[in-house]
Amino acid sequence: QSSVTVFGSIDLNVTRSKAGSNSVTGMDQGGYLLPSRIGFRGTEDLGGGLSAGFWLETAVLPDTGASQGALFGRRSTVSLASKQYGELRMGRDYTPIFWNVSHFTPFGTVGVGGSSNIIEGWPLGLGSARTQSRASNSVGYFLPRTLGGVYGQLMFAFDEDVDGAKHQGGRIGYEAGPLNIAAAYGTTPAGGSDFKTATVGGTYDFGALKAYVNYLQYKLASDKQTNVLVGAAIPFGGGTIKASIARSDRSGPGLDADDARQVAIGYVYPLSKRTTLYTAYSHITNDGNAAYVTADSSPAGVPGEKSSGFQFGINHAF
Amino acid sequence: QSSVTVFGSIDLNVTRSKAGSNSVTGMDQGGYLLPSRIGFRGTEDLGGGLSAGFWLETAVLPDTGASQGALFGRRSTVSLASKQYGELRMGRDYTPIFWNVSHFTPFGTVGVGGSSNIIEGWPLGLGSARTQSRASNSVGYFLPRTLGGVYGQLMFAFDEDVDGAKHQGGRIGYEAGPLNIAAAYGTTPAGGSDFKTATVGGTYDFGALKAYVNYLQYKLASDKQTNVLVGAAIPFGGGTIKASIARSDRSGPGLDADDARQVAIGYVYPLSKRTTLYTAYSHITNDGNAAYVTADSSPAGVPGEKSSGFQFGINHAF
Amino acid sequence: QSSVTVFGSIDLNVTRSKAGSNSVTGMDQGGYLLPSRIGFRGTEDLGGGLSAGFWLETAVLPDTGASQGALFGRRSTVSLASKQYGELRMGRDYTPIFWNVSHFTPFGTVGVGGSSNIIEGWPLGLGSARTQSRASNSVGYFLPRTLGGVYGQLMFAFDEDVDGAKHQGGRIGYEAGPLNIAAAYGTTPAGGSDFKTATVGGTYDFGALKAYVNYLQYKLASDKQTNVLVGAAIPFGGGTIKASIARSDRSGPGLDADDARQVAIGYVYPLSKRTTLYTAYSHITNDGNAAYVTADSSPAGVPGEKSSGFQFGINHAF
Repeated sequence: QSSVTVFGSIDLNVTRSKAGSNSVTGMDQGGYLLPSRIGFRGTEDLGGGLSAGFWLETAVLPDTGASQGALFGRRSTVSLASKQYGELRMGRDYTPIFWNVSHFTPFGTVGVGGSSNIIEGWPLGLGSARTQSRASNSVGYFLPRTLGGVYGQLMFAFDEDVDGAKHQGGRIGYEAGPLNIAAAYGTTPAGGSDFKTATVGGTYDFGALKAYVNYLQYKLASDKQTNVLVGAAIPFGGGTIKASIARSDRSGPGLDADDARQVAIGYVYPLSKRTTLYTAYSHITNDGNAAYVTADSSPAGVPGEKSSGFQFGINHAF
Repeated sequence: QSSVTVFGSIDLNVTRSKAGSNSVTGMDQGGYLLPSRIGFRGTEDLGGGLSAGFWLETAVLPDTGASQGALFGRRSTVSLASKQYGELRMGRDYTPIFWNVSHFTPFGTVGVGGSSNIIEGWPLGLGSARTQSRASNSVGYFLPRTLGGVYGQLMFAFDEDVDGAKHQGGRIGYEAGPLNIAAAYGTTPAGGSDFKTATVGGTYDFGALKAYVNYLQYKLASDKQTNVLVGAAIPFGGGTIKASIARSDRSGPGLDADDARQVAIGYVYPLSKRTTLYTAYSHITNDGNAAYVTADSSPAGVPGEKSSGFQFGINHAF
Repeated sequence: QSSVTVFGSIDLNVTRSKAGSNSVTGMDQGGYLLPSRIGFRGTEDLGGGLSAGFWLETAVLPDTGASQGALFGRRSTVSLASKQYGELRMGRDYTPIFWNVSHFTPFGTVGVGGSSNIIEGWPLGLGSARTQSRASNSVGYFLPRTLGGVYGQLMFAFDEDVDGAKHQGGRIGYEAGPLNIAAAYGTTPAGGSDFKTATVGGTYDFGALKAYVNYLQYKLASDKQTNVLVGAAIPFGGGTIKASIARSDRSGPGLDADDARQVAIGYVYPLSKRTTLYTAYSHITNDGNAAYVTADSSPAGVPGEKSSGFQFGINHAF
């Protein structure tokens, strides 16, 4: 009767990070595309192209064994899916806007080169918003995969009277051969204004090089952040060289100078489809009062001071 | 060597609930018989009709991904069972009195029609008692299933010097063909008095209609609550129409007027043995200072004011 | 793709414990070698004698269903292992010094006869040290099992600027036929001094009797504890009689008199390889201000007063 898959990945590394004149050597979770996690999922064939399924996923900080946030706070959903009409999904899930930040960068959102390092308020959002990457109490709809490369999703999340919890968003993309592009938009009422996110990005695989580009804009009243990232992944020596340059342009009263740049380079080497060794170096230049850092285990960011990080580690998926 | 089953159910719905003049639309966990949960269990055949087994079960609130209470607070037990002599079970488990409230109602204890909505102090009990539905540090004995339809259990829970934690209770029932009846009694010392529960109920399946009836009485010193529920489940259109009427009669100094009534109606439609769609509407009339509501996501109850809830959702078991 | 094993053990007992003139009867987790736990682990064959693996393990208190400490605080690791060169392991893991305390005693560290009962500060250590049994942010190396009976491990744990978290330690042992001996040493900077642990012990299986001996010494500045344990396990009536005598000698300013002795005797009877019944009795004599007790569920220890515990229970592994 039971058909549950236990899945996840454990990712650990040794990281040397610096912020201003302080430095720390320690272990950081998640340096290869995805944070560490363990989950339980399953699908049931209902016949006629229809299926039901569930997904429960826990964030793991394997350096200490601790979890992070709610027990199944990474994802907790139940779905009804039709091959022809798409999927209806309910629960706590990623917001549509999350996926561009995660997919259209060679480092994913994690590690010293992660695209989220210079995104303000990550993973919650600006002000009281808490929907930058995930939303609770959500109903989502996903297009079927029969539309000739077009994919997309819509999400509505109830606020249940909690400020910053309501969310409406959507994402539309096109994937064909070497090309994958997508745009997403989301909005969350937070403290009297709307926290709005717009993003467009894509990848193109030239074979000898896969190019990444992503553009994001967050806004809450007069507080605005624009992030642009370009990156590349180059097959080399059985593995892949990865590099990205990202820029954050913050604007708003007293915030205009708080910009930042991140340059990251790394190499990943797969021992198998499930196990990967990796190393990466990243450098963040903070202007004004910006105080971004390269790692969770980093010393606290120092406004206007540089931060850097170097790590090597292993990712093991199961 | 390992023979562990991962099991559970994820149940999510969209619920519109009202209390007095306030209303909320949101998601509520558990609307179909059982709350959402995930667990791990297994049995080992020891030969000669003897077996050992364990059961660890976690409460899941899938709308946010959070758990509820202790990690395996729904149930955490180890058992030695004999086909001939019955089962000895230790750990945290349901109290015998719980089962009538859950089984002898068409809606179970959950959702807008749940039988527990108008039970005072649920799921802990009156005063400092914490044994209305489960007890920690318990030793339980279950009759074998070879007694011609008679079933039953006894439980003793140690208090370990915590007021309201000690429990003694038992349940005896008879199931044969269309008939299932049971009575249970339990007592817990709480704050100098005994929190006492007595309950008797049953179901009879006429084929075209399954009838439910349950009577409960809770007492702690002069504080008393008597709940009566009658319900019906009627096969219709491939699914089942469910309805119940319940009444709470509270008595005690300053409590005599705090009565309530709940009327609930719903329809469940199975897509498979494991996946069920459902909808339900319920209405609670509160008298005096009674302030019961129909859903966890409901606005706070308003003393003496009506509450109602409407929901539709999906339950997926695995 | 997935090859995850769900494993663990649930151990529950009824324990009567006494400390000074107070006594409690309740349930205590873990009386047979290991505390209750559930975990997820897997290995992947990478070819050429190389493998990758992960291990996530949760502490369970089955009498209440609660977990203990971080979600995977018992162990949370990822490994690269070579049959020829040994294993590299990262994450939260047992310290090398832990293993002598656990292996070279007939009762393990748990239950009324557990060797840890009269070890000061268990499971964290003296002062601000938190590495007596486990360390977070650790890198470990384990010798391969091809060295003719010699085994061993090294561990280094990063402190990440937390006092008492850094750890360096190692263990070397030899196992051949009836003999198993090992020595371990570990050190953790804590509050300006080093918390140092040295331990040497072993077992010898004479067939009709397995002998256990272990010596430990903990030191933090002038605070010192020396523990000596001798024990025996004697096959009898299809099970095993177990007995141990342990002595704690504390020294330091104002601590010289705070010594203790523990005498424990028990019997374990396996119903199968996975399920074991057990009973044990233990008695602790506290001198000076020593206030050790025999069980987690015991009344609080009374300085200089005796403590005792009697339990019977069941351990079920899966």
